[in-house]
Amino acid sequence: MSAKFSLINEDRGARLGQIITPRGVIDTPAFMPVGTAATVKALTVEQINQTNSQIILCNTYHLHLRPGIERIQRVGGLHNFMNFQKPILTDSGGFQVMSLSKNTKITEDGAIFNSHVDGKKIFISPEISIDIQKKLNSDIIMVFDECPKYSKEKRMIKDSMNLSTRWAIRSKKEFGINSNKMLFGIVQGGIFNDLRLESLNKLKEIEFDGYALGGLAVGEPQVEMFNTVEAISSLMDKNKPRYLMGSGTPGDLLGAIKRGIDMFDCVLPTRSGRNGLAFTWEGKINLRNAKYQNDDTPLDKNIHCPASNLYSKNYLNHLINCNEILASTLITWHNVAFFQDLMKKIRNAIKNSKFIEFHNQHFKRLNA
Amino acid sequence: MSAKFSLINEDRGARLGQIITPRGVIDTPAFMPVGTAATVKALTVEQINQTNSQIILCNTYHLHLRPGIERIQRVGGLHNFMNFQKPILTDSGGFQVMSLSKNTKITEDGAIFNSHVDGKKIFISPEISIDIQKKLNSDIIMVFDECPKYSKEKRMIKDSMNLSTRWAIRSKKEFGINSNKMLFGIVQGGIFNDLRLESLNKLKEIEFDGYALGGLAVGEPQVEMFNTVEAISSLMDKNKPRYLMGSGTPGDLLGAIKRGIDMFDCVLPTRSGRNGLAFTWEGKINLRNAKYQNDDTPLDKNIHCPASNLYSKNYLNHLINCNEILASTLITWHNVAFFQDLMKKIRNAIKNSKFIEFHNQHFKRLNA
Repeated sequence: MSAKFSLINEDRGARLGQIITPRGVIDTPAFMPVGTAATVKALTVEQINQTNSQIILCNTYHLHLRPGIERIQRVGGLHNFMNFQKPILTDSGGFQVMSLSKNTKITEDGAIFNSHVDGKKIFISPEISIDIQKKLNSDIIMVFDECPKYSKEKRMIKDSMNLSTRWAIRSKKEFGINSNKMLFGIVQGGIFNDLRLESLNKLKEIEFDGYALGGLAVGEPQVEMFNTVEAISSLMDKNKPRYLMGSGTPGDLLGAIKRGIDMFDCVLPTRSGRNGLAFTWEGKINLRNAKYQNDDTPLDKNIHCPASNLYSKNYLNHLINCNEILASTLITWHNVAFFQDLMKKIRNAIKNSKFIEFHNQHFKRLNA
Repeated sequence: MSAKFSLINEDRGARLGQIITPRGVIDTPAFMPVGTAATVKALTVEQINQTNSQIILCNTYHLHLRPGIERIQRVGGLHNFMNFQKPILTDSGGFQVMSLSKNTKITEDGAIFNSHVDGKKIFISPEISIDIQKKLNSDIIMVFDECPKYSKEKRMIKDSMNLSTRWAIRSKKEFGINSNKMLFGIVQGGIFNDLRLESLNKLKEIEFDGYALGGLAVGEPQVEMFNTVEAISSLMDKNKPRYLMGSGTPGDLLGAIKRGIDMFDCVLPTRSGRNGLAFTWEGKINLRNAKYQNDDTPLDKNIHCPASNLYSKNYLNHLINCNEILASTLITWHNVAFFQDLMKKIRNAIKNSKFIEFHNQHFKRLNA
């Protein structure tokens, strides 16, 4: 069986679809919890599954450093290693080379840098990144790209985009023919829409199974991100999934879906969960706040997840105050369940061609 | 329905029984995981339940300090507060007054000390401890006792034992009539068997629903603990449960069950779990050890718990190396499941009058 995308409904800009892979169906718009080091932090796979997550993202860069690919490849890949049998998307490492590593040197060949874990010198090229992702046996593989820092120097961003394009060609060649997996290209070009468009057109010539927007959600104002998404996403292939990398808040998701995005990943629900912050339909709340000592209601009695409907805010506040591990687990678990609840309701709204109403009803509160 | 104990079989010293409470049956010999601050550290209640634990222990001292009794009493007690609906035993706080608090002063009235959390001055008397435990709505309540440090000064230990006896009388009075709960007396007397016996006889006069051995498992040699257990337990009421507090290792459990003990609690499986130590039928193993990088087998494929049979040692070793919360959760979960697997097999051996064979087959390896 081949992996493929099918578009089910369009509601003005918003799209309802399905990515069908041998490991399962992913309903889009989809949110992917982040499982950097082969674990969605603080959750067991049973708990991930209970949130109705249909796909997670893992990081090639981190797994290459620890535990190393051999220990994962030996058991047949990431799914077996971490016991998650649904689809997995792996990032190529390009973003982490920029954001995490030290003494990075970019050449035509690839990136040389020092590991942030132990300082060891490491080289990643497009060929190496794709080879690793194939050994990880991930279902959706990303091209290896250069992710320049946010910058207004157009010449530099253009050179970088062109390098990423040449790396995309090499990534595709290394990927080869692999019909049960998908390879996504990554549109670069910073805040320059003409460069973004040039990048997209070149990637479309190479032909990928999906197209991602890279180098966004890195601290720029939301309106700027929405502008870039709006300018580019409608020019992406209609019959292929569109993925906004590293985004975002519930407000980011609503706004980007309105502008045609199908896929998201973000550490927000998991990282916030470890810091006592819970996402709710009324907005984000800080469970450390003393007022929750008097609140015996659960985070959301309507979300079908024990962390959402079974434990009171009073109890969660107590667990946080005692630095109990269970606080991280329960709030992370709820947050991921909340994000999936949001996505499900969004998909339902698109299905019924009522997405704009849904967006307008919730955007302000969820974007606060 | 009243709480009661029924003795089902005796296999030389070892006893098979059941404690029947309105919240559920506890098969004995029983192991109680410790849920100090209203959480068995790193586990959800769903996970605790999957280990077949039939009762847990919580600490009055810790809960009195944080979050305070009002926030628990308000929702009807500990079961609702932490969402654990099976029986809960609460320790009286006597042990923590000795081991955790600062500037402790013991008077006839009770104990005055500074909280280890915020230094606040706190007073606990037998009446206050029992009142708190009733407000926590625990199913098995322990008398408030003085727990002197390990000592060979007989005069001091005797005075302390006599004080504990007077406190036991006051505890019983405060407990009142409460047929769906049980109140246990605690035998003190240090390493002096004549004092232990005197303590037990006085407690039997007062009459409790069960009898515990306190002040053991505090660092004394195992043989000394076994000697005390052997000297006292057979003199305890045959038709009431016998509880060795704060114990122990798998070897401690086997040895104490052989000498007539029915109930245990210990932080060992949970604390070890957070430190990367796993209990197995082959003995304790340190999953940090590099050799587990090459071990793709689970901790125990025969134990019906995902943490035991689903995740490889290779994966667990990776999680520990990355300081992932999931390492603590999975190894704790397995350890508690292992302890319950051990207890189940022990009960089965007693049922079939084959406990001594079972003991001899496993003691050496499990006690290493």
